[in-house]
Amino acid sequence: MGKKSKNEPKSGQLAAPVVLGIDLGGTKILASAVDRQGRIIGSAKRKTRSERGVDATIERILKTAYDAVDDANLDMDQISAVGIGAPGVADYDAGVVEFAPNLSNWVNVPLGPTLKKALGIPVFVENDVNAGTYGEYTVGAARGYQSVLGVFPGTGIGGGIILGGKLWRGARNAAAEIGHFVVMIDGPVCGCGRRGCIEAVASRTAIERDILGEIRGGRPSIVTDLVNLDKDRITSGTLAEALAKGDPLVTDVIERAAYHLGVFTAGMVNTLDTECVVYGGGLIEACADVMLPIIREATYRYLIRPVEPEHLPIIEAALGDDAVLLGAAMLASASLPHKQRT
Amino acid sequence: MGKKSKNEPKSGQLAAPVVLGIDLGGTKILASAVDRQGRIIGSAKRKTRSERGVDATIERILKTAYDAVDDANLDMDQISAVGIGAPGVADYDAGVVEFAPNLSNWVNVPLGPTLKKALGIPVFVENDVNAGTYGEYTVGAARGYQSVLGVFPGTGIGGGIILGGKLWRGARNAAAEIGHFVVMIDGPVCGCGRRGCIEAVASRTAIERDILGEIRGGRPSIVTDLVNLDKDRITSGTLAEALAKGDPLVTDVIERAAYHLGVFTAGMVNTLDTECVVYGGGLIEACADVMLPIIREATYRYLIRPVEPEHLPIIEAALGDDAVLLGAAMLASASLPHKQRT
Repeated sequence: MGKKSKNEPKSGQLAAPVVLGIDLGGTKILASAVDRQGRIIGSAKRKTRSERGVDATIERILKTAYDAVDDANLDMDQISAVGIGAPGVADYDAGVVEFAPNLSNWVNVPLGPTLKKALGIPVFVENDVNAGTYGEYTVGAARGYQSVLGVFPGTGIGGGIILGGKLWRGARNAAAEIGHFVVMIDGPVCGCGRRGCIEAVASRTAIERDILGEIRGGRPSIVTDLVNLDKDRITSGTLAEALAKGDPLVTDVIERAAYHLGVFTAGMVNTLDTECVVYGGGLIEACADVMLPIIREATYRYLIRPVEPEHLPIIEAALGDDAVLLGAAMLASASLPHKQRT
Repeated sequence: MGKKSKNEPKSGQLAAPVVLGIDLGGTKILASAVDRQGRIIGSAKRKTRSERGVDATIERILKTAYDAVDDANLDMDQISAVGIGAPGVADYDAGVVEFAPNLSNWVNVPLGPTLKKALGIPVFVENDVNAGTYGEYTVGAARGYQSVLGVFPGTGIGGGIILGGKLWRGARNAAAEIGHFVVMIDGPVCGCGRRGCIEAVASRTAIERDILGEIRGGRPSIVTDLVNLDKDRITSGTLAEALAKGDPLVTDVIERAAYHLGVFTAGMVNTLDTECVVYGGGLIEACADVMLPIIREATYRYLIRPVEPEHLPIIEAALGDDAVLLGAAMLASASLPHKQRT
């Protein structure tokens, strides 16, 4: 599926207003100027370095924003709004990042108001996975569906929910935290401190733990040739490489994770009954060929109301690393008063 | 909490239009004439006897409807609409019961159009648990909240979801089938044929199975004095009696079921982030004192975003056996064109 719109011609003369989409990640900041059709017309990136503190991080966000606008051959006063996806709980209406452990523990940071003051344009702050799901819904793989469940397995498992054409944020901006649904009482310990969350069963972190456990138990794996296990993590790329080489251990562990994801997806669809499911995230991008067919089979088998697969497509995300910033940009665009958008 | 509004004075002269709410159950039909405030002003009931066929069952629904209207000292031409809750998948827009195993396997029965033709007024058909949740939301325990998760453990475990003040029916009228969320891979066999559904772990049926298993294994229980286990089921009433008498086996099994329900509820709230959770159904009505505190404790402990209990009340349903018909009546009332309602 790959990334879209990366090579569109840049333009200094735009009929429709341009918004800025920003993906504020734990390690890097991505920013792009985006037109109304979701085409990227200029981009920039920079390391986050959140350990330097809130003010320094916001300064780096601003620099990256200006760089992206410059890359689009525009000035900031030609940008109508900013949408930013942040890795944590975000209050969309207030623009506050309530809690973001991956940004060196941000708590109640008024990111939206601060950026708005600096830039002089409206700023909208959304949870990053919600933004990514909204991106896939508006300009990605799930375009055209009115209800979408987004599942993004990587280091953790994030989720996003679109219902009736709208992002469902929940009563406390805490909806779609699907990674901590317990699917195995007394199961493996999760990063959250509890046991048996789907994230502790089927994330890349869980897969890594299971592979390391088997290797320590004496089972051979090509992973020991690919990675220095004393100091490096088993990345999604390494998993993909081991799969490509037919490593039996890695294949077993990943197939099992995919099966669990499928059974879990069925439970989610039994609950939400969305028109489609979109799967993305680092683990899926690297291992889709092996994982998605197993996820699909298990999902359809565990649905309580059987459907033909064409009536519940389980599709791979299309926007890759641009999903969050594109979704944030599209949210910002949709949140502008109508006359500002047209 | 008990039932509400049962003893309101009947009235032949009504300022606001009256709707008819019907609970079409597998064993009995309940019908009530309901005013705009959700007060019951006349009722009737009758056995369903769905084994006699679709036409005979619809005939019995019509008789019960006329009886309820008569009990309210009204004529059918004073009724503005009918809402009916059916035990299965219902297409609200078409009024069709797509699939109802508990009605001797109804498939694609045009219940709404048939009743509409016979009665000459609009008829709205909804899944019974959706209707019950809507009843608790509009005139019951969850009144005033804008997003509600309803959980109804009994023979199975039904659910209902209100989001943004509206019933979420899903893309295929199949939402909120929460009973078949797998919480225990390779767990106990479920009535659906799969394994480890929450219904197979924490419904009355699951509790009965676990108690019987332990009794067969030699563990003593007062249940053997209360029920002839060779021919009778262990009802929710029997469970309540055994709890009241402090039976250790029944207490253990019910406490374990309640714990599983709580962990599951946390997963649902992590996903949906509703303002409240309402628990009803036969098992809860009988055993609320033991089960609800455990459900609450486990839910709050397993939420990934901690909340103060007062910000996520987990409340007991208030409408009892009237929940489905009241919810169906309120849905019908809300579905009427505005000028017909006022």
